[in-house]
Amino acid sequence: MANNHQYHVAIVGATGAVGQKMLETLEDRNFPIKTLTLLSSKRSAGKTVRFQNKDITIQEATPESFEGVDIALFSAGGSVTKALAHEAVKRGAVVVDNTSAYRMDPEVPLVVPEVNADDLKEHKGIIANPNCSTIQMVAALEPLRQEYGLSRVIVSTYQAVSGAGNEANDELKNQSEAYLKGEDLSAEILPVKGDERHYPIAFNALPQIDKFQDNGYTFEEMKMINETKKIMHADQLPVAATCVRLPFFTSHAESVYIEVEKDNVSVEDFKQQLSNAPGIVLEDDPSTQSYPTPLSAEGKRDVFVGRIRKDLDHDKGFHLWVVSDNLLKGAAWNSVQIAEELIEKQLLTKK
Amino acid sequence: MANNHQYHVAIVGATGAVGQKMLETLEDRNFPIKTLTLLSSKRSAGKTVRFQNKDITIQEATPESFEGVDIALFSAGGSVTKALAHEAVKRGAVVVDNTSAYRMDPEVPLVVPEVNADDLKEHKGIIANPNCSTIQMVAALEPLRQEYGLSRVIVSTYQAVSGAGNEANDELKNQSEAYLKGEDLSAEILPVKGDERHYPIAFNALPQIDKFQDNGYTFEEMKMINETKKIMHADQLPVAATCVRLPFFTSHAESVYIEVEKDNVSVEDFKQQLSNAPGIVLEDDPSTQSYPTPLSAEGKRDVFVGRIRKDLDHDKGFHLWVVSDNLLKGAAWNSVQIAEELIEKQLLTKK
Repeated sequence: MANNHQYHVAIVGATGAVGQKMLETLEDRNFPIKTLTLLSSKRSAGKTVRFQNKDITIQEATPESFEGVDIALFSAGGSVTKALAHEAVKRGAVVVDNTSAYRMDPEVPLVVPEVNADDLKEHKGIIANPNCSTIQMVAALEPLRQEYGLSRVIVSTYQAVSGAGNEANDELKNQSEAYLKGEDLSAEILPVKGDERHYPIAFNALPQIDKFQDNGYTFEEMKMINETKKIMHADQLPVAATCVRLPFFTSHAESVYIEVEKDNVSVEDFKQQLSNAPGIVLEDDPSTQSYPTPLSAEGKRDVFVGRIRKDLDHDKGFHLWVVSDNLLKGAAWNSVQIAEELIEKQLLTKK
Repeated sequence: MANNHQYHVAIVGATGAVGQKMLETLEDRNFPIKTLTLLSSKRSAGKTVRFQNKDITIQEATPESFEGVDIALFSAGGSVTKALAHEAVKRGAVVVDNTSAYRMDPEVPLVVPEVNADDLKEHKGIIANPNCSTIQMVAALEPLRQEYGLSRVIVSTYQAVSGAGNEANDELKNQSEAYLKGEDLSAEILPVKGDERHYPIAFNALPQIDKFQDNGYTFEEMKMINETKKIMHADQLPVAATCVRLPFFTSHAESVYIEVEKDNVSVEDFKQQLSNAPGIVLEDDPSTQSYPTPLSAEGKRDVFVGRIRKDLDHDKGFHLWVVSDNLLKGAAWNSVQIAEELIEKQLLTKK
């Protein structure tokens, strides 16, 4: 940290899957907290949460909750952000928002610190945290793009249920137990809470994450496509995505195909580049069957890359396997990391 | 069937995951069986199996077991095929082999009946059944290739554990139960029985199917690449594959990106073409969240296709989601279908 100042931090959505990880991450990072205000919907208000050996009572989030707050970490759904983020900014807080509410707003920086920390300098009070599946992909691709250029991205994802919240975790657990007992499976949450149809996720794969858009892509796929271009400042970069929900609790994995601009780049070049990249751990040795998996990445803040291969037909084409904890680098850690950057860069006073 | 003749059929590997499905499929298809000989390793010999209301005792497979056999369906591993397939052919049987032993042998037709049934005419006693993940992909792509040409294939797979046999099914079941009870997971089979390291598959994803090759690709990936070219008679077709094992029991799913040769092809063109294709069921309507899943395809002989989208940056690029029961179209049904074609085409006498 750049100084010894301490901050008043608020978490909006403190009882959710990401909110819980935000608390853990602030504690792990020994974040310079003066006061911690935990906010939630009326339903969860009144519960207490343990933080640094103290009980903190969760309060209902209202515009007035943000009086005196320096940094507000939002993760309570897009409608809560839309109702309260500007209220927080009005009261002097800088908002780091983990929903999709303002991600594509040209006034709002969309930041993965390893990729575009300098975009924070343009913030006007709200900074957006990208979609989980986007964050880990751009973190892995940026060091390659810087060195070799990037002319194409095609990704197929393998995504954990916790991206859909604690209710989705419970659904996977309950369905798995039922399936193993030979009972019928009831599905009420996945693939998308509030959508018309629900399918079992236990021992299954659902090629739908978030709602379908008019172009036949899901919103999750369009988030990966549009957010990648915004974060990398690469409007013309072709990006294609197929997003699939799978029966595991934590970590997203991604099968990523890219084409670079430079000629004669080797797998060894890629490995060297990624070994030296911030936030990236190379885990790639076929001779010892070394590669990352969702279970091995769980609870870690890094992005893990393995299975790097050159395409057999395209000299500029490469395949990678990218895995990261969707609740940490994909959400809580990236948000806290943005907050740390704001302090480091002395950007906590909005323009 | 072309005539009323009945045949002496042998199944080698009758107690395995695929062998069991071969028995069910022969029964379901009312295959014209005069005599059914069930063969296995010495270890499983002596067990009895119920078929068409009769108990059949499984015998140890020896060269002499094939005396009088017309059609021998092999699914007991490559070493058994190498030891016994030619012995069976010597005794007048035609072998349909579900292992990788002879798939790339130029003397051996590699057949998916919807794609290259005519290759059966060149058989010299052995016909190879392709790898499960290859079969469903080429079945889905062939009707598109015929109409629009095909210039590129990039696939990421989502594969069921049953492709690694009954032991892998048991491992997924046991690990899932242990995980849900909060117990430690022990891994002894997956990703590859007999390989050095084992990883838990329950609530996880393993980016390794079959052993690593010197080029960094796994053997499963190379099977998809090489077999696709052979089946489609398209040596120059660029095919890339990333193969991933997932925690479900049955059906493989595939996220497939292709480029066609013709201009101005639409998603509607694709849908019409696939609707009329043999063995393909189109299940693709975003407005009703209709798409195939591993659970919905289980127990069915068809190949299901959904999530058809045009690439947003490449006018000749399309994305598809292809799902099929890996033990049926991927193995048992494709083998029985080859046997039916051999009868239909009067090809049971080897050249």
